[in-house]
This record gives sequence, C-alpha cells and structure tokens, in this order.
Amino acid sequence: MAKAYFDETDEKTDELYMKQALTQAKKAYKQGDTPIGCVIVYKGEVIARGYNRRNKDKLSLSHAEILAIKKASKVIGDWRLEGCTMYVTLEPCQMCAGAIVQSRIPRVVIGCMNKKAGSCGSVINLLDMKEFNHRVSITKGVLEASCSKLMSDFFADLRVGAINKDQGGTHGTA
Amino acid sequence: MAKAYFDETDEKTDELYMKQALTQAKKAYKQGDTPIGCVIVYKGEVIARGYNRRNKDKLSLSHAEILAIKKASKVIGDWRLEGCTMYVTLEPCQMCAGAIVQSRIPRVVIGCMNKKAGSCGSVINLLDMKEFNHRVSITKGVLEASCSKLMSDFFADLRVGAINKDQGGTHGTA
Repeated sequence: MAKAYFDETDEKTDELYMKQALTQAKKAYKQGDTPIGCVIVYKGEVIARGYNRRNKDKLSLSHAEILAIKKASKVIGDWRLEGCTMYVTLEPCQMCAGAIVQSRIPRVVIGCMNKKAGSCGSVINLLDMKEFNHRVSITKGVLEASCSKLMSDFFADLRVGAINKDQGGTHGTA
Repeated sequence: MAKAYFDETDEKTDELYMKQALTQAKKAYKQGDTPIGCVIVYKGEVIARGYNRRNKDKLSLSHAEILAIKKASKVIGDWRLEGCTMYVTLEPCQMCAGAIVQSRIPRVVIGCMNKKAGSCGSVINLLDMKEFNHRVSITKGVLEASCSKLMSDFFADLRVGAINKDQGGTHGTA
C-alpha cells in the first residue's frame, strides 16, 4: 500500500537496514537471548551492529542498542553520534532510550513496539521530552510483522521448553 | 542535626560509602571529566567502583554508574544485582536510572540532585514507576554539600579555562 506521506526511497532504505537489524536479532535467538537486534548507520554505511546478549554476558547492559552505540562511538571517535540513525527491531527500554539521548543520536527507526516496557512511546517517551537537551526523531513500524513474529516465536519456544527459561524470557519487561 | 526518622547507624554507614563514591568522583575531576563517582555495596563490602570517563573514553556509556554496574555484575556473576546498594554522588541521568532498573538494584543512595536532567525525582523518576516491573528505594542528600561543592568547583574551573571546555561541561545536562 502506498504511503503518500513517506518518500518511497526512504521507506525502502529503512526496510533495508531493518533487515540487517533482524539478522542481528536472529543471532540473539540462536543463543537463547530475547531476539532483539540493532544497526547504526552513518553516511549510508552500517558502522555498528549489536544483538541482545544479556543472558550470554550475564550483564543487563548487554542490550543490542548499548553494544551498537559502543561500537559506533569507537568508529566515529566521539561520544556524540550526531548524523547517525539507529535501526532496532524492538522499541528500546528506558536504559537504551536514555543511552540514545545521551549519545545525541538524531533518529531512531523501530520495528515493533513493546507495550509493557517500551520507553519510546509505549510506557513513556524518553526520546521526546522537552526537559532534556536532545530530542530524537522516531519512525515506527518498519518491518513490524517480521520483528514481532520473531519475538512471538521466541516466547512460544520458551513456553514449550525449547529454550532454557533461565536464559530468555524477561528481557524488555522491566 | 538529628534525624529521628533515620536509624543513626544506617546514616553513618551511608556517609561512609558516599565518601568512597566522592573519592571516585575526584578521579573524574582530575582527568577533566565532570566529577561523578559511584560505588556498589553488597553484603557490607564495596564490590564495584566507577567514575565518569565520558570524555576520556569518548563514550556516552562511560558514566560512573554504568561502569560500576558492569564490574558488579562480573563480581556477582549475574545480570541481576539483587541485594546491592548503589551510592552515587549525583542524581543519575535517564540512561543510568534505566540501567539501575534493568539490573534490579533495590536501593540507590544519592549525594546531590541534578535539577536539569536528573531522572530519579528531578525531571522524572524512572526508579519508581508502577509500569515497570522493578522499583528502587531512594535515599537522597547524603553528604549533599560535599557532592554539590565538587560539581560547582569543577564548573567554576571550566569557566575560567582551568579545564578544557571540550572535555568537561555538558555531562548530566542531557
């Protein structure tokens, strides 16, 4: 269905990069972590990738977005990620939304929303608060069905015991 | 002045650990980063320390709290920091408040507040939102004057050019 309010090319570009974020998310799935993936694009190039490794690393900080921000800062050589776009399969939590603001990323493209704990519009919107000195442009629903299906497949696997309960499960619900 | 609503011993203990957080903050000052320090205590022992290294590391993630959480998770061997108390000289930003919730830290002790950008009561309180599945107990104002003075001394140094403007200055205002 054509969306007149979008530039066709931009929409296609967003889908292209979201596909790469989905590839990252599948890596998390494989290792038993909730399947969330992320890429950061700068001047038309993917400069950083990340996937959720919270259980693998035994570290709450190992969300896809945080790992990608770390890599992107190393590539750019600055804590300011101005000019970058983040593509992430699931709406970021409060920590990751905070990290996006702190690193001055101007635009975030989200696959599917996280009604229970998302902090970019669902529970709260930390990306667009007038009180903070940086606000982030958000595009939602890019490859939403694929991003959402990956999550529900994972949780179905969890329920039938195909994934160790201690590994997956609670990410993104806090 | 006696505070009847506090247990005297706990107050003294809090001050003891906040002093150690202040020692960390001074390390940040020395290297030209906004002086914010943090320690994490578990079963009466300091298991992790951190100080702001954002400019030094060229990384928005290098806030004192994030660095301390990383170390504490390594010591405990779990992403869940249940039973830990965090002592931090300045009210955490939205990213660090998010990381505190994500790592399930039950209690945070704060030196001075950050009216412009603090996310534990000033601009917003991410530590106590009924929507999230973890809420954090907060104690404020421990060694407040010392924590606050360290910040104002730093910004005075910045203004007179004793610290490189590109290094310090904007931390905690986003």
